[in-house]
Amino acid sequence: MYEALKQKVYEANMELYRKNMVIYTWGNVSEADREAGVFAIKPSGVPYEALKSEDIVVLSLETGEKVDGKLNPSSDTPTHAELYRRFDSINGITHTHSTHATAWAQAGRSLPCYGTTHADYFRGDIPITRYVSREEAERAYEHETATAIAEAFIGRDPVHTPAVLVKGHGAFTFGKDGANSVYNAVVLEEVAKMAMIMLSVNADSDCLPSHIQDKHFLRKHGPNAYYGQGK
Amino acid sequence: MYEALKQKVYEANMELYRKNMVIYTWGNVSEADREAGVFAIKPSGVPYEALKSEDIVVLSLETGEKVDGKLNPSSDTPTHAELYRRFDSINGITHTHSTHATAWAQAGRSLPCYGTTHADYFRGDIPITRYVSREEAERAYEHETATAIAEAFIGRDPVHTPAVLVKGHGAFTFGKDGANSVYNAVVLEEVAKMAMIMLSVNADSDCLPSHIQDKHFLRKHGPNAYYGQGK
Amino acid sequence: MYEALKQKVYEANMELYRKNMVIYTWGNVSEADREAGVFAIKPSGVPYEALKSEDIVVLSLETGEKVDGKLNPSSDTPTHAELYRRFDSINGITHTHSTHATAWAQAGRSLPCYGTTHADYFRGDIPITRYVSREEAERAYEHETATAIAEAFIGRDPVHTPAVLVKGHGAFTFGKDGANSVYNAVVLEEVAKMAMIMLSVNADSDCLPSHIQDKHFLRKHGPNAYYGQGK
Amino acid sequence: MYEALKQKVYEANMELYRKNMVIYTWGNVSEADREAGVFAIKPSGVPYEALKSEDIVVLSLETGEKVDGKLNPSSDTPTHAELYRRFDSINGITHTHSTHATAWAQAGRSLPCYGTTHADYFRGDIPITRYVSREEAERAYEHETATAIAEAFIGRDPVHTPAVLVKGHGAFTFGKDGANSVYNAVVLEEVAKMAMIMLSVNADSDCLPSHIQDKHFLRKHGPNAYYGQGK
Repeated sequence: MYEALKQKVYEANMELYRKNMVIYTWGNVSEADREAGVFAIKPSGVPYEALKSEDIVVLSLETGEKVDGKLNPSSDTPTHAELYRRFDSINGITHTHSTHATAWAQAGRSLPCYGTTHADYFRGDIPITRYVSREEAERAYEHETATAIAEAFIGRDPVHTPAVLVKGHGAFTFGKDGANSVYNAVVLEEVAKMAMIMLSVNADSDCLPSHIQDKHFLRKHGPNAYYGQGK
Repeated sequence: MYEALKQKVYEANMELYRKNMVIYTWGNVSEADREAGVFAIKPSGVPYEALKSEDIVVLSLETGEKVDGKLNPSSDTPTHAELYRRFDSINGITHTHSTHATAWAQAGRSLPCYGTTHADYFRGDIPITRYVSREEAERAYEHETATAIAEAFIGRDPVHTPAVLVKGHGAFTFGKDGANSVYNAVVLEEVAKMAMIMLSVNADSDCLPSHIQDKHFLRKHGPNAYYGQGK
Repeated sequence: MYEALKQKVYEANMELYRKNMVIYTWGNVSEADREAGVFAIKPSGVPYEALKSEDIVVLSLETGEKVDGKLNPSSDTPTHAELYRRFDSINGITHTHSTHATAWAQAGRSLPCYGTTHADYFRGDIPITRYVSREEAERAYEHETATAIAEAFIGRDPVHTPAVLVKGHGAFTFGKDGANSVYNAVVLEEVAKMAMIMLSVNADSDCLPSHIQDKHFLRKHGPNAYYGQGK
Repeated sequence: MYEALKQKVYEANMELYRKNMVIYTWGNVSEADREAGVFAIKPSGVPYEALKSEDIVVLSLETGEKVDGKLNPSSDTPTHAELYRRFDSINGITHTHSTHATAWAQAGRSLPCYGTTHADYFRGDIPITRYVSREEAERAYEHETATAIAEAFIGRDPVHTPAVLVKGHGAFTFGKDGANSVYNAVVLEEVAKMAMIMLSVNADSDCLPSHIQDKHFLRKHGPNAYYGQGK
């Protein structure tokens, strides 16, 4: 019944693995089908080398309960579910511990827009969450991780800045589907790496001026975008 | 009609990809045929995995208008076109966001000649441009990027220093043809990486003495060059 | 007689090589069979490219003497033997000089728990040993390396923190078997790399709060663990 | 006539390439046959992808003149020739611009013995040369590079410390044959990388205590060495 969705989510997870964004069982990709009222996600603790499309788990967007699949879904499933509820314009989510993005998350710093490669995909800085509190961690850790992410986006649009650093933890990226969120995870890792190298060359580097940030974002994503081959 | 040129530009673009100088659709290579009055360049937004030689777009050097090809050319085409007009001794241009070169561009620093591997290919420092202004960005961003590059070469020869860092953006490298500009892009990335590591070992590192810079550049490129197998 | 054990230890050593944790003959993996009273280990100085399962050497846990195999065991064998004696709950040991873990060992620093990827596998910091003294090095260097490791674990459980940095030397990781200790070596290298990058971004980075450390360790390893597919 | 020597030197050069110690035409390996009074070396400017064993050039150890081969030898040939004359106990030389070793050479710093992986192969620090002077560079640059290297080894034995950093330039490593010098080049690159990471973790890191340096070097290379499978 959910074969096409499961196949897409399987492919997106494998792409995350092929792009060296994960080792072992780290990370997971999901995709929502808003019409069907479900999202599909990687199962928990299954290595990518052994993953099959039939292992993908399908859950209700509304209740978070499993509607298809034999395995347990990713332990991060409540984070994905809550993000789909709060951000109704995104239909793909990737969670990674890619090396440089995670190092920034551990450094407790948002990632400023230092260059055009950042501006091509993300408006403004990549926000960083607060820590989940002790009480929240004990009650509903994964759900409250989504709450902390949503707080970090107050006044901002996750479609325009489809990435967030979870403090001390790793990254979540968003997209119009699972594959697109993986793409943004790869770009985030690369811009985090460039930023780290830049700081080691010049610790006082400036952010990109706002008019160049705007130019790059809008030539790809604005109403008069002229990058690519059109629709 | 332009089959040979398109094939060369296709190969040069794929070489850029194989050398890990680009991810996704980042970067592009062009080559000019001065006699035919044209240059050929990668199409915009086409992933390297899917690129074919017939996708390469051919444009007039004089007017910048498309003379062959179905697809839109790279959004950076006006930069290439203007550089060919200003630098008549170069016939190949590569634009990359390779990791370490871009980090230096973001750091807002020219890349001094710290070692013989730099001196073997580039005379003196790799210059860095100013930012394109708000007015320039709104009017003709890609064209004005070439203007800023040309300013950075005032009093210098792009044949002797076939690379430039565009502040906050990335690198352009030059060559006698597209393939040669790719080669210089790979060397630039490597010397940028070495320089970054060098600074983390010794932040007060000196530039290479000028007599050793000269020796290395001239034994490869001078009138009495003795590197290689001759002509 | 020890075919199955030798095959497992061969596979674990090759996995260490495939995961880029070793170059040339650096590093070694062993596994203990407590019932049989033996452990098996890589031979000394044999490159991974040439290693065969029949080359694996089997030794007595009690006496450290060879009971099977033609080759000399790893020169680090007395370290492994003594660790099996002191830590009776571990049955796999990996010794590596993986790049970032070794850099931390050379830096003379324990590796604090900076992120959830660390907390998922290791409780608290990864301890670092003191140097082996001149007298110890002359008398029984490899044996005393194990003594120094055991000292670093006083009051701690190597099952909960299955890794240690040997000052100026490299890393040892532990596991329920050889393969599991290799897995932990790969995770250690990755978290050491993340920590180094984190420090270059923010030299004053904080450790992960203890309630998040606990949450991550216990959701994978505690009595109510809910990560993965259960038993 | 020199088929066996040329084949060995070809293989050693290709190994240097496979180990990612060189890009394009950077670097070269030679090997001396003292009885035959010759050494063989890579030709100048030939990419590794195109190199064949018949391209290897054979020269007289005494005069430095070509005795076999059609191509021009490496432009660094006078450095190799002079090193074979000055260091009669080495029969293999590798010249590389591997990334981290070259960064240290550019940083103008000798590489202290920070860890056991260094001590396993190199006694004490890896020395660094002075710059070749303007007068020397103009007169006989490559020959004087060897002079500067020899100066850096005054009071030291290149067999016990088979590597040197040439200031602002790159590395030379030595061995009992070409292949062994390549091996030492790979180890040098790895210990240079570890040292750089170590410094970024702890800028005040100590050298390895001398008794551990001695223990590691001697257990592999001393009269009572017990590493490996014996002779």
